Amino acid sequence: MRAAVYHGERDIRVEEVSEPELESSTDAIVRVTHTAVCGSDLWFYRGYRDYDAGTRVGHEPMGVVEAVGEDVTSVRPGDRVLAPFAISCGECEFCRKGLHTSCVNGDGWSGANGGAQGEKVRCPTADGTLVRVPDRYADDEDVLESLLPLTDVMCTGHHAAVSAGVEAGDTAVVVGDGAVGLCGVLAAKRLGAERVIAMGHHEDRLDIAESFGATDVVSERGEAAVEAATDLTNGGANHVLECVGAESSWDTAVEVARPGGTVGYVGVPEDVDDAEFLGTAFSKNVGIEGGVAPVRAYVEDLMADVLQGTLDPSPVFTKTVDLDGVPEGYRAMDERDAVKVLVEV
Amino acid sequence: MRAAVYHGERDIRVEEVSEPELESSTDAIVRVTHTAVCGSDLWFYRGYRDYDAGTRVGHEPMGVVEAVGEDVTSVRPGDRVLAPFAISCGECEFCRKGLHTSCVNGDGWSGANGGAQGEKVRCPTADGTLVRVPDRYADDEDVLESLLPLTDVMCTGHHAAVSAGVEAGDTAVVVGDGAVGLCGVLAAKRLGAERVIAMGHHEDRLDIAESFGATDVVSERGEAAVEAATDLTNGGANHVLECVGAESSWDTAVEVARPGGTVGYVGVPEDVDDAEFLGTAFSKNVGIEGGVAPVRAYVEDLMADVLQGTLDPSPVFTKTVDLDGVPEGYRAMDERDAVKVLVEV
Repeated sequence: MRAAVYHGERDIRVEEVSEPELESSTDAIVRVTHTAVCGSDLWFYRGYRDYDAGTRVGHEPMGVVEAVGEDVTSVRPGDRVLAPFAISCGECEFCRKGLHTSCVNGDGWSGANGGAQGEKVRCPTADGTLVRVPDRYADDEDVLESLLPLTDVMCTGHHAAVSAGVEAGDTAVVVGDGAVGLCGVLAAKRLGAERVIAMGHHEDRLDIAESFGATDVVSERGEAAVEAATDLTNGGANHVLECVGAESSWDTAVEVARPGGTVGYVGVPEDVDDAEFLGTAFSKNVGIEGGVAPVRAYVEDLMADVLQGTLDPSPVFTKTVDLDGVPEGYRAMDERDAVKVLVEV
Repeated sequence: MRAAVYHGERDIRVEEVSEPELESSTDAIVRVTHTAVCGSDLWFYRGYRDYDAGTRVGHEPMGVVEAVGEDVTSVRPGDRVLAPFAISCGECEFCRKGLHTSCVNGDGWSGANGGAQGEKVRCPTADGTLVRVPDRYADDEDVLESLLPLTDVMCTGHHAAVSAGVEAGDTAVVVGDGAVGLCGVLAAKRLGAERVIAMGHHEDRLDIAESFGATDVVSERGEAAVEAATDLTNGGANHVLECVGAESSWDTAVEVARPGGTVGYVGVPEDVDDAEFLGTAFSKNVGIEGGVAPVRAYVEDLMADVLQGTLDPSPVFTKTVDLDGVPEGYRAMDERDAVKVLVEV
């Protein structure tokens, strides 16, 4: 079979690899039909993170179950499924608490399980990890494209909104106009926010934010952006979604928060070299909630909305490639030619 | 009148200064009878913060009202009162929300209001700031000494516990054995924590922590301390009180938190030059709540407990001086000869 493999900075190749096999009675083998390139894939792509050459990549799998171990009960061969970026058992303290990313039996898609940007993956603890798409939607390409973001970015944006405490009638500020920030806008609207202010620097992405329900956009940078958002909220927002993870976006997020408000964050902290934001948070008692999104806790709820047609994050996919096009997908994401790339395997 | 005045690094002098006067109809003049030296006073004392030479210092006043402006209704001359380190109006959005430290009309004790380490202070927005001690306790020295920590450290420790979400039956870890950390132990016990693990490096202070109800103490440093606390909590605590504000204590606090837990913090962030703790918090979804303590929101509740004899933070005072002894009080705090210094003006 073929899969995308990391070979070094900006060097992703699609090549022949060994097929995954059932190794445990709780495993499933999934033939990947759809996957995506993630903003977080760019860290190793750009060389920000150490990554072993030869590692299979991709962590947003959707596909068809090909085989299951004898103890797997929730899916069977032929089922259309999707899986979060984190593998989880569904049974430990943290899975039961809805914190599947802290699963004590947890795992990821790279390594022995194969990357999702490939023809097949092995899914350990399949009952705890895989989510079955109801049969009547299992071959509806439009629905599948709308469901695919639930493997990561849509649930991550939702985690930001939930962590920020967004409820019906609230005003929320979303910092970041990448796929996660855009999904944060969708999530805040879905939770009933009356006003959603999207902050970003790219006109085309802010246009998507508006189509997702943002009532205001702020495209300035630095202090001017903080001032604009603070003015729009008459002194700061009680609910801020930090969807980037950079030092500057942290500073912005905490600065636009109202005293006593909450920043819900999901951007992996990257190059946050100082903790200046903490002094700002301290002075006005701004809470900081969130972290790596426990996608598995959210998929079923959000899937229900997608299936009934009230939620559609698919516009974050602004480019589609096939498996051979994965390297081009990375390039497009890296050079900001695409918000997010859909891979039709 | 006489007051303690900052003249430079490690140079506090008690000298003749001008008397404060009523400047507004909502002011009160308070003759200070008791005050204290605070761990946070050491920042300017040690030269960590820029401070103008000639500034009066001290922010924990207790005393007797001497005069009030015509619009002051809650206190009158002769009343024994105490006041938080932050002056607040009691009427704005943030005061009504219990976030008096973000009062839009707020102020502090240094500057034109005079420092609390002096014979008198001017208290703006007296109705919003001063808390009256009931007459029957107004001259009981033991009670007054137990109430004095409510001007800052006791309510600050309480804010850490509340922010960390401590409730009856919980296990809490308190990072820091200074006066605030010790009060954090008291606060966690008062909120019903079954188990309180105090982390610090000073045997005498950890003894106080145990007398305050700590069920376990961890006196190791660095990784050994984290390991010990993690072992005691079978993998981390859901409620951690960060009562120091240093980079190392931040790392410890987040590391000993259980996935999905909360760090309640009240230590002013000082020299937290990197945000490494944020990566740890991200990976396990540890919430960070708290900030500068809105003391005024808590004083009345905690005073009720002190007056009925179920709360006594006075053991944090391990040294007493008179007004002339304030410079010696700073020296003792600076050299860790005292946990906290009581000043009988």
